[in-house]
Amino acid sequence: MSDTLRKGLEGVLVAESELSFIDGDTGTLVYCGHAIEDLATDASFEEVLYLLWNGDLPTESELAAFTDAMAEERAVEDTVLDTAATLAAVDEEPMAALRTLVSSLSAGSDETDASSAGQAAARRLTAKIPTVLAAFDRYRRGEEPVAPDPELGYAANFLYMLTGEQPDAVAEETFDQALTLHADHGLNASTFTAMVVGSTMADMYSAVTGGVGALSGPLHGGANQDVMEMLLDIDETGTDPVEYVEQKREQDDWRVPGMGHRVYGVKDPRAVILEKKSAELNATAEGTNWYELADAIEQYFEEQGLVAKGIAPNVDFYSGTVYYQLGIPVDMFTPIFAMARTAGWVGHTLEYQAENRLIRPRSRYTGERDREFVPLRER
Amino acid sequence: MSDTLRKGLEGVLVAESELSFIDGDTGTLVYCGHAIEDLATDASFEEVLYLLWNGDLPTESELAAFTDAMAEERAVEDTVLDTAATLAAVDEEPMAALRTLVSSLSAGSDETDASSAGQAAARRLTAKIPTVLAAFDRYRRGEEPVAPDPELGYAANFLYMLTGEQPDAVAEETFDQALTLHADHGLNASTFTAMVVGSTMADMYSAVTGGVGALSGPLHGGANQDVMEMLLDIDETGTDPVEYVEQKREQDDWRVPGMGHRVYGVKDPRAVILEKKSAELNATAEGTNWYELADAIEQYFEEQGLVAKGIAPNVDFYSGTVYYQLGIPVDMFTPIFAMARTAGWVGHTLEYQAENRLIRPRSRYTGERDREFVPLRER
Repeated sequence: MSDTLRKGLEGVLVAESELSFIDGDTGTLVYCGHAIEDLATDASFEEVLYLLWNGDLPTESELAAFTDAMAEERAVEDTVLDTAATLAAVDEEPMAALRTLVSSLSAGSDETDASSAGQAAARRLTAKIPTVLAAFDRYRRGEEPVAPDPELGYAANFLYMLTGEQPDAVAEETFDQALTLHADHGLNASTFTAMVVGSTMADMYSAVTGGVGALSGPLHGGANQDVMEMLLDIDETGTDPVEYVEQKREQDDWRVPGMGHRVYGVKDPRAVILEKKSAELNATAEGTNWYELADAIEQYFEEQGLVAKGIAPNVDFYSGTVYYQLGIPVDMFTPIFAMARTAGWVGHTLEYQAENRLIRPRSRYTGERDREFVPLRER
Repeated sequence: MSDTLRKGLEGVLVAESELSFIDGDTGTLVYCGHAIEDLATDASFEEVLYLLWNGDLPTESELAAFTDAMAEERAVEDTVLDTAATLAAVDEEPMAALRTLVSSLSAGSDETDASSAGQAAARRLTAKIPTVLAAFDRYRRGEEPVAPDPELGYAANFLYMLTGEQPDAVAEETFDQALTLHADHGLNASTFTAMVVGSTMADMYSAVTGGVGALSGPLHGGANQDVMEMLLDIDETGTDPVEYVEQKREQDDWRVPGMGHRVYGVKDPRAVILEKKSAELNATAEGTNWYELADAIEQYFEEQGLVAKGIAPNVDFYSGTVYYQLGIPVDMFTPIFAMARTAGWVGHTLEYQAENRLIRPRSRYTGERDREFVPLRER
């Protein structure tokens, strides 16, 4: 027992993990020993899910069995769709809607005991989250949900359920890559939330619902949306991006969204990969080149010496332009982050529960002592 | 940055708090400087809520304003009642139902920004949780919900909504006392969950939903139900309670529920208070004397020297018999714990967010390194 206050738990080692390794000084991110660059370009999101939950990449037959089992689980009960419709009708925030919908998925499940059935709940949840999210977004637009297509992969099926049209190969590959890049990232606040919930041996629905709630906070999951809104504002006002940022930075407390990360002292390796995708997608698209706007801001940060100080693009800085080019509504960016990060929430919860210890820190009491109780009438 | 693994964060100081002080060696529990014994017997749960959220006990006029504001917030939207009916129809677990219902309460709210409106969301949530919980339980029994009565206090109104009848003075006082005793208890796993969620500046709905999820775990919130089920089993089988416990203890890994607590080395001060209530209620009731059964087990633990080793009754050991005597269904015991603990979840989240720092620990990577990527077809 130490009397040092560890506010934010920065640097405190709370668990051992075989899932992801981050070297913030060199800009390295690894899932189960595999470089993120390899996984992003050469493995599907389903392979990454299998890797994070089992420790090794699957063989072809393992992957086929895993993919089939997940695809079978995609459909949701009508009552869940009704809840999605109700939430859409009252214009619920997308992350709040996702939190409620994820929580509602436990109803009717028969594997609430996390210790024996965590993997089954994990597959079920991960398979159904895209379905409820796409349904919610369609209801908001006054459209009926599109039923999942078991023949499509995870990434393509989500885009299909969202838009009603099968995505082309470029869109599918791009979205799959973005999902992989967001799948896990050590003990970030939402993953740690899932672990704390899971440490009571609560079921996976509780752990993932907790993760969604944590990711909904503006200090955690909202930056990709903020980046895109900044770029849209730059475009609409016709401002030079560097002037825009310089003006904004003169305001108190304004920080360029998507720049800097507690863990990385250099450019986030995920941003390096997404930047390429963003450049590719924008090179062939009509209208505003969102990549160029973002890149101009990055160049400015470089020239100002900010990148050298670690205030460099993180994963959110380029994911927004990628999603926007894929036609995804801006306020769905964070829910999509949640959809991908479910991989890590589940993976870390399964791993922690396998050698569980209830997570219960302490606080230092700084309040009053020995106060005399005065009855209400005499106060 | 230290390389010591702090699994479970036992003893790690993660925050300063003026809310509750626990001395596990002397069996002391204090809320904002006031002894739990004073608050349990001489203050209402509403006074305790006010205390935990504002730091001081209210004056009469402050309490009246606070109580009125809470009472006005008790009713919920029809869509929320529909969700409760749907969850009851599919026989959802009560804690899972509560998690989904709490999450759904954000829909239609206009104070999702926690930093400016945390207190408003706190009042709204705390006022509505009894309503959704009672409605869910009534739907399960095939009965329509009972609308809240703004003239009744928090404790009496819940019992009224649950049973459809106004409780007598003894029942009201007893339930109010039990709520106060469960209102806060340092950084237990569910309170810490709410704080981790809140540290992303997520809203209060996300924080409290996270707390419910954590409390649903068998290592955290279920022991009061387990105690009552043990006593019911003893009663039904006509076994002597000491023989029952001795037999069970010979089984691997079986522990008497409600005995021992990570924080207390002596008898939990809340158990001392609830034991008295349990004895009182059972003295005047017909049928099995549940208090005597529980007390016989405590005596056995005392004689075996277990109490001296800290394996002493905790709050759950006597709360179950109290709730049972009040006619509350056994599987509602943990949801009622959640209803009371919302006070602490909200209080600690408000307190932490006022001087916020994102909670993000690290893990020690123990996985493989530099693995070669083999394409799927070659695996």
